[in-house]
Amino acid sequence: MNHRIKKLISLFEEQRLDSFLVTDSADISYLTCFPSEEAWLLIFAKRAYYLTDSRYVLQARQGLKGVSVKQCQKSLIDSAVDLVNGMKIKRLGFDPRHVSLFTYQKLRYGCANKVSLEGDQKGLIGHLREIKSPQETRKIKEAIALTHEAYRYLGQIIKPGITEYQIFLKLEQFVKKLGYSFSFDPIIASGPNSCHPHAKITHRKVHKNDVVLVDMGIDVQGYKSDLTRMFFLGKIPALIKEFTELVGAAQDAAIDRIQPGVKASIIDQQARNFFKKRKLSKYFGHALGHGVGLEVHERPRISQKSQAILKPGMIFTIEPAVYIPNKFGIRIEDMVLVTQKGHQILSR
Amino acid sequence: MNHRIKKLISLFEEQRLDSFLVTDSADISYLTCFPSEEAWLLIFAKRAYYLTDSRYVLQARQGLKGVSVKQCQKSLIDSAVDLVNGMKIKRLGFDPRHVSLFTYQKLRYGCANKVSLEGDQKGLIGHLREIKSPQETRKIKEAIALTHEAYRYLGQIIKPGITEYQIFLKLEQFVKKLGYSFSFDPIIASGPNSCHPHAKITHRKVHKNDVVLVDMGIDVQGYKSDLTRMFFLGKIPALIKEFTELVGAAQDAAIDRIQPGVKASIIDQQARNFFKKRKLSKYFGHALGHGVGLEVHERPRISQKSQAILKPGMIFTIEPAVYIPNKFGIRIEDMVLVTQKGHQILSR
Repeated sequence: MNHRIKKLISLFEEQRLDSFLVTDSADISYLTCFPSEEAWLLIFAKRAYYLTDSRYVLQARQGLKGVSVKQCQKSLIDSAVDLVNGMKIKRLGFDPRHVSLFTYQKLRYGCANKVSLEGDQKGLIGHLREIKSPQETRKIKEAIALTHEAYRYLGQIIKPGITEYQIFLKLEQFVKKLGYSFSFDPIIASGPNSCHPHAKITHRKVHKNDVVLVDMGIDVQGYKSDLTRMFFLGKIPALIKEFTELVGAAQDAAIDRIQPGVKASIIDQQARNFFKKRKLSKYFGHALGHGVGLEVHERPRISQKSQAILKPGMIFTIEPAVYIPNKFGIRIEDMVLVTQKGHQILSR
Repeated sequence: MNHRIKKLISLFEEQRLDSFLVTDSADISYLTCFPSEEAWLLIFAKRAYYLTDSRYVLQARQGLKGVSVKQCQKSLIDSAVDLVNGMKIKRLGFDPRHVSLFTYQKLRYGCANKVSLEGDQKGLIGHLREIKSPQETRKIKEAIALTHEAYRYLGQIIKPGITEYQIFLKLEQFVKKLGYSFSFDPIIASGPNSCHPHAKITHRKVHKNDVVLVDMGIDVQGYKSDLTRMFFLGKIPALIKEFTELVGAAQDAAIDRIQPGVKASIIDQQARNFFKKRKLSKYFGHALGHGVGLEVHERPRISQKSQAILKPGMIFTIEPAVYIPNKFGIRIEDMVLVTQKGHQILSR
């Protein structure tokens, strides 16, 4: 068993668990260091089982270390029930965010009175994933460096006359030629399209004096980057220039406060208050940031309601923005690592 | 309200429901004819509400017809609870496959004693989606025609010396240039890699006398195709030739039986018995097929355990295969439409 699974097992006692069913692919990939698909992981105190079906079993046997790979003849649910019922366990943990009500009912019915299913409200594995090891941080830094390369390339090709979709095709080819892939469908939003925080790519032509918002990330061995940059063509209208500076200043105000022990909600508040003072609150609707790792959106949330407290090793985005309906949007998104004494902006 | 939402409402009475919460993106896209993201749909007898947040709300307002778009200030769960509590309803349906236990508990807590949450065990919307309209079938046929074009292109470029990843890059560029995208990450598995039903693309070079298995689909306005083809380079070894013919014959045996009223499990059995008689059962582990539409895998399942009964308008894959560990795999996958009197193979 690797140290990540051992770490989870070491938490069993205080959680009064003797086993854990992991159903989320990213959680399983994290715990096994293997890119999991269509599988569940069942962890007992002395042994972990990777359950999958005939389509994936050979690859799993080749790639997984320290975990027993079981080829399921039945569904994952039924196979897990059989395995659980064959063990002397009493309290099986699981993440209620990643188990549907349907699956829960089947599990409960299958395990009948023998085993108590214990919904892990805290998200034990999510908390482990929040803190990146130096090895994980290296992969994320590499993903960021590649994203910078892609942005430099975009600087060369974004010109009046090219369409958003054409930019996308060229960008995709560039990333593929580097030997990588996107960590999510990029956003390329020009002119008024940039007012949609999650704009879809259109066939709109980029015009003279347009803004172009690009939100993109690259995947390095499962680890992601997520950065947003603005491109300005020709002369920037005064209002756009002013708002861009404000968004940058809001980002600085938030990042300045990042250090261990600070509440994530306080970081969000920094940017939100900055906009509030300038009566721009209504143009900034989403959370200020989110953790990035094996998933583009993971813990910690950097939002008004977040309960998270910053700890060394956390990596997350800080992405303040203003969106003026039907006019334009400005978002600047960087990635920040919490260090022992403060923070490091990974993407500048 | 469009006819799909009306159709769902018409089923409320026999299900003893007065409202329905739709949480699955594909279900929402189907019901609203709008490519939904990060949204829920709440349907009452006289009105439907599309709940989303500030990131998506403008696009939703522009694209949705006959549905009220509500911008959520709180989470989707809390916003749905508020809306439900403001209505005079008693029985709210939802799909327990697409609601996590966490979400269910929050909803139940929020709606307290006012509303009874009724898990829709049958999958009402899934059943509506099973039967494709002529318009939906047209889109799927177009996706298939484009996939055929892509396969013809592959016939020209798959040659000894090219790697799986190089094939992928060229294929992707071809599909993009047509103006389309894949409906899932394609599988390109050469030589022994083809023994993995869901092989990952590698940097392996295609050799003389290799088999290359390609599983690919294209997306046309949300509707998918899903076809697998085998490419043979040079001289085909006798065993591979024999197995390829057997897989083809197993497919024919299954397809021949497709007509309205037949159980899906019987179709699966046709191919499985064919392999059993030849002592090849252990080399064919997965289900024979699956419905295709807005999702690559949807109802009906064509498997041993499937409860589905074939009906006109269903479209699904038939994909028998043999996988000889560490040697090679042969899969042939076509898409079939159930017609009033029999069936039509859409992909030949």
